[in-house]
Amino acid sequence: MIALFDSGYGGLTVLKPILKLLPEYDYMYLGDSGRAPYGNHSTENIKMFSEQAVEYLFSKGVKLIIFACNTASSTSLRHVQEKYLKGKDEQDRKILGVLIPAAEKAIEVTKNKRIGVVGTKATINSKVYETEINKLDKDIKVYGKACPLLVPLIEEGWQNKPESHSILKKYLRDIKNNNVDTLILGCTHYPLMLKNFKRILGKKIRIIESGEVTAQSLKTYLGRHPEIEGKLSKKGKKEFLTTDDPARFKEFTEKYLGMKIKMPEKISL
Amino acid sequence: MIALFDSGYGGLTVLKPILKLLPEYDYMYLGDSGRAPYGNHSTENIKMFSEQAVEYLFSKGVKLIIFACNTASSTSLRHVQEKYLKGKDEQDRKILGVLIPAAEKAIEVTKNKRIGVVGTKATINSKVYETEINKLDKDIKVYGKACPLLVPLIEEGWQNKPESHSILKKYLRDIKNNNVDTLILGCTHYPLMLKNFKRILGKKIRIIESGEVTAQSLKTYLGRHPEIEGKLSKKGKKEFLTTDDPARFKEFTEKYLGMKIKMPEKISL
Repeated sequence: MIALFDSGYGGLTVLKPILKLLPEYDYMYLGDSGRAPYGNHSTENIKMFSEQAVEYLFSKGVKLIIFACNTASSTSLRHVQEKYLKGKDEQDRKILGVLIPAAEKAIEVTKNKRIGVVGTKATINSKVYETEINKLDKDIKVYGKACPLLVPLIEEGWQNKPESHSILKKYLRDIKNNNVDTLILGCTHYPLMLKNFKRILGKKIRIIESGEVTAQSLKTYLGRHPEIEGKLSKKGKKEFLTTDDPARFKEFTEKYLGMKIKMPEKISL
Repeated sequence: MIALFDSGYGGLTVLKPILKLLPEYDYMYLGDSGRAPYGNHSTENIKMFSEQAVEYLFSKGVKLIIFACNTASSTSLRHVQEKYLKGKDEQDRKILGVLIPAAEKAIEVTKNKRIGVVGTKATINSKVYETEINKLDKDIKVYGKACPLLVPLIEEGWQNKPESHSILKKYLRDIKNNNVDTLILGCTHYPLMLKNFKRILGKKIRIIESGEVTAQSLKTYLGRHPEIEGKLSKKGKKEFLTTDDPARFKEFTEKYLGMKIKMPEKISL
């Protein structure tokens, strides 16, 4: 089974393109809504939440975990990879993130070598996009901007209201002033405001979403690793887990994915 | 020692008037910022968080706890009072909330018997203000309105920006249409936007803040209960505990209270 882990609902923007591209596999989605949003929490706490999620998912027999959350990926992915994938028993396990696929795509797209990144405070403060991009091309300038109000606005369904547009415009002022030609949406919630991003940035700035590039990257990965792909169950099952109210989780998820799901299981981490 | 418990920073608007009115006592302030904001969480989760906080504070020898958080008060106060104050060993312990003082004040103030309440989703959905007010006067109409974006806006320091004003104006439309003459700020964060509330509501609607009425009510309570008052330590000490980054907590608290504090202790609940 392939598991996606997110702080709450944001990872659904990663699950959706994955389901479209690779519908045959079984998926488990864990949203830690009971402690969302992660974005303003300390690195230490996000690491602890991520460890708990990974331990839970491995205990359920999951072999491949995707951190479908930029905040968890940027603060904790390397940490959990080092902690949980070193032993002999763990060689058939894998944890992937959403950062590298988006960073690689942005490098491929940029012409003027100026890339912007928007995300939560934790993601932007970690400077992980800058680090990863500069590992591959040290001449690229990366400009990060934290947009901490976007997740609460989106979780409230205010993404199309004029106040949200105005707040986003203020957040994007620095990005525009830095003359970037490519912008990474470094938070899996932000695609839910894609129209606003496009209206504010115009056609000259190319926008990179984590979801689609991660789905592509997962497909490539499975093609290259038959030893992992062969072990995955393929019945098209979808299972949802949450640390908060399952009914609310079901409603939001069905609306966003446009499909019926069975009642999510409420778990404690 | 008297302890104040809040989901994060909001309870500081209760601590401030208490320190002004009753500076002689020792205080402990516990802000569960690591899991804030509570307002969008399920009742079940908030109850669990409240139990953990109460158990922690009693284990530290605290005798009197004030739930300086409307969300915790409205969903969990009765529950923790029933769970932790029934035994023989527990007769010298007390847990107080911020709801009753505000409800009593509003009843005293209203002339047309129409009272509005604003708060988080959890507080408004609990209908606890309505219940408490109607226990005392069943002819009073209570109109509740959840304002879930205010806490994130305030935590980001956006309280004076035009977008926040505009969002608040939308939230208060129903309240104004219901022709109330009194409004309870049913969230301890909201006094940080008091000017905006006043500008939108005008002079005809009287605004009730939890902090000041709770401080008054605590003073009255201690005067009436010398058996508890006599056991409280009186050295004017202040201790701060947080479940998230202590340095950030220190900075915010010092700025709001206008005084230096020693580094908060980071704890796990």
